[in-house]
Amino acid sequence: MKEIFQHIDDHLNDSIAELTELCKLPSVSAQGTAIEETAEHVEALLRDLGFETKIMPKPESGQTGGSKAQPVVYGELRGESPKTLLFYDHYDVQPAEPLDLWSTPPFQPTLRDGKLFARGVSDNKGNIVARLTAVRAWRDIKGKLPCSVKFCIEGDEEIGSPQMEEFVDEHQDLLSADACLWEGGGVTWEGIPQVTFGVKGLLYVELECETVNRDAHSSYATVLPNAAWRLVWALSTIKGPDERVLIDGFYDSVRPATPEEQAALEAIPSEEAETLESYGIDRAVAGVSGLDYTKRYLMDPTGNIDGLTSGYEDEGAKTVLPAKALAKMDFRLVPDQDPDEIVELIRKHLASNGFEDVKVRLLAGERAARTPVTDPFVQVMRDAVRAAYNAEPIILPTMAGTGPLHPFVSTLGLPTGDCGIGYPDARIHAPNENIRIEDFRNGAKAVAALIGRFGE
Amino acid sequence: MKEIFQHIDDHLNDSIAELTELCKLPSVSAQGTAIEETAEHVEALLRDLGFETKIMPKPESGQTGGSKAQPVVYGELRGESPKTLLFYDHYDVQPAEPLDLWSTPPFQPTLRDGKLFARGVSDNKGNIVARLTAVRAWRDIKGKLPCSVKFCIEGDEEIGSPQMEEFVDEHQDLLSADACLWEGGGVTWEGIPQVTFGVKGLLYVELECETVNRDAHSSYATVLPNAAWRLVWALSTIKGPDERVLIDGFYDSVRPATPEEQAALEAIPSEEAETLESYGIDRAVAGVSGLDYTKRYLMDPTGNIDGLTSGYEDEGAKTVLPAKALAKMDFRLVPDQDPDEIVELIRKHLASNGFEDVKVRLLAGERAARTPVTDPFVQVMRDAVRAAYNAEPIILPTMAGTGPLHPFVSTLGLPTGDCGIGYPDARIHAPNENIRIEDFRNGAKAVAALIGRFGE
Repeated sequence: MKEIFQHIDDHLNDSIAELTELCKLPSVSAQGTAIEETAEHVEALLRDLGFETKIMPKPESGQTGGSKAQPVVYGELRGESPKTLLFYDHYDVQPAEPLDLWSTPPFQPTLRDGKLFARGVSDNKGNIVARLTAVRAWRDIKGKLPCSVKFCIEGDEEIGSPQMEEFVDEHQDLLSADACLWEGGGVTWEGIPQVTFGVKGLLYVELECETVNRDAHSSYATVLPNAAWRLVWALSTIKGPDERVLIDGFYDSVRPATPEEQAALEAIPSEEAETLESYGIDRAVAGVSGLDYTKRYLMDPTGNIDGLTSGYEDEGAKTVLPAKALAKMDFRLVPDQDPDEIVELIRKHLASNGFEDVKVRLLAGERAARTPVTDPFVQVMRDAVRAAYNAEPIILPTMAGTGPLHPFVSTLGLPTGDCGIGYPDARIHAPNENIRIEDFRNGAKAVAALIGRFGE
Repeated sequence: MKEIFQHIDDHLNDSIAELTELCKLPSVSAQGTAIEETAEHVEALLRDLGFETKIMPKPESGQTGGSKAQPVVYGELRGESPKTLLFYDHYDVQPAEPLDLWSTPPFQPTLRDGKLFARGVSDNKGNIVARLTAVRAWRDIKGKLPCSVKFCIEGDEEIGSPQMEEFVDEHQDLLSADACLWEGGGVTWEGIPQVTFGVKGLLYVELECETVNRDAHSSYATVLPNAAWRLVWALSTIKGPDERVLIDGFYDSVRPATPEEQAALEAIPSEEAETLESYGIDRAVAGVSGLDYTKRYLMDPTGNIDGLTSGYEDEGAKTVLPAKALAKMDFRLVPDQDPDEIVELIRKHLASNGFEDVKVRLLAGERAARTPVTDPFVQVMRDAVRAAYNAEPIILPTMAGTGPLHPFVSTLGLPTGDCGIGYPDARIHAPNENIRIEDFRNGAKAVAALIGRFGE
């Protein structure tokens, strides 16, 4: 591996230049900008490395709440061993707004203090380029990869990966592999690498209530029903101050941690202190700390209010009885909670608590997925990351976030892990998204080591 | 009275023309537009009728939450008897927005189907002009008024009458009178005139909660506190689905209806069916109907959410844990609830329910006031209105709305009643505000009759 790592070191500037070019493309899926040219740009990068490529449309409809889907960039490069690694990534990025909070323009990548700043530089373009860097090192040094590599790079992960389940289902042969490297990952506040083997699912709903046919003067509050109150009361039956979701059956399908997951959780250094300090508080929800904090963060489902809107929201005092009220909610789900089942439980819950007037609109649903920490691929990834970082990685049974992992684990049957170039202050989805060049270097080496190990 | 009434009939077009001119002035107190020129326009109208007038500033500071106050137009005209009637009105209007819901522009008064449409045409400029019309009739026919009349026309009633208590306190001699005619009133859906003898008070507060120093990714919902949830839980302790306010002591100072008020309430034809139908529902809050509906509407205090705002409120699914949440609330108060006491009860309630993190900001407070239905002035008004409408008026011990009546009743010691030109579809505070010309005619006659009766 020494030569391979040396090649990565020697060509670091070229890799950063390649990443800089890619980050200049404002491929914001939510706004539909620069999608096509970014897909073509990424395809060209793959082709230049010898990949057979194609740009593939997703199925036209499918998964609930799906909008029109962007195409997937597919690439395949044969290696020496019969084994195949599938890389999942995405070429789309989050919107850059609010623009005035960026120190430098989001689509003019800027190097500063050993960091590269740009929208998408960490999530997920930096990981795409780190993977290309690893492939290039093997190709340049050895002429051929130790194992075959396939890329599946989608164009609308940031808006919930519409039709990804259907795409995977339709292209099982093409995507067939022996394991999958998920999109990202990184190091802790202390610089310890993390390897992650699962994602939570997501159920996103709007709860809407309409009580009267128009806003009324608030002097009618004695006799006309107020939509804001109805919504507040309905929400307060969904979760109480003890932070436990009160929907009947909500926790029924939650798969308990296996003894091996439990052991992995116990080995994770808690990031509690850093997280709480960063958000300016001194106590986590429900007072949890240490292992309880870690378990809760990674293994528990959530019930979160994303937004509330009703009535008069501007400056000063307007006396109005609102006719309408809306809450946006997301539920991060864990195996084996099913978003379609949970949305039905919410509807039943509201009806049985007297809130038939609160309508539930389903916006998005994704299932959780995990690769067992006992899978042999876990050891392969552990070894690869250790070789790149000279440090024992932390094994996370799952991340707290969501991604379209389920069809890869379930439909394709792939063990799937996640390592990458991120760090806790990468500000993904936020202004001043950035990577540290050193993390990029190490992340690329970890991928190179993985390709090596996997081909053995 | 016959000649007087005839004069009003004969000069109806002149009155409507005068009202049209006044309604062209966009005197929106919330936006500070055209205030000075409207004050001067109203002063000129009074002067032309022979009133001694002045434009008087309000005291610079005072009542909690008061913004910079607009001046009061004062006018005084001597009559034959030593008795004096004080007319309270306001020359400011509500904002006209949303403009696209108006059939004709709000400040281009338009006659259509026997109605005049304009912002402020009912609330309160139509009443000002009806009163001027009544005065003009007496002056033209008899040369002199039967009693003295004073006008007190303020310029910021629509933003909560800042510093009105202090203004009245400072000018007790100037405003001294024997009774007061309040700003408006009107007829029921069936056309029966109503005379009203009180107002509710108002407490307007903002409840704000901030849990972390910035919005977080919603995958942190297991461990970071969500401001929207905290606010929802806090609100749900303030009032429950049975619509009873749960703040300890909230109802303690509520003055029960006197036997005479009870009798008046029983004589009021319920407007329940029309109101519910107009708002598209078939059942009032808490299922009340008939006398219970009327009593609840007029005599009970409220706890109303005017607005909710938190987190992501735009289209689609954004997964965010909101750092801040805000609710606007108003409480319509009844005698003898004190807004300053109630705001303290709310703060205590939140603290004792574990919501010290929910801050209460006081925006406005006004006390309720009533003239006893046993006061002799009630009979005077009843007779005057009966003479104008040829119908027995309904006596309301109070309206459900709020106005700065308290200092007039309490500081000046005036019996105070309310009759006017409105009707239930007048759309005050809403697009397409309008009056029916027939209501204007009858309303002006009622004021003329009152001036006559009061001078006897």
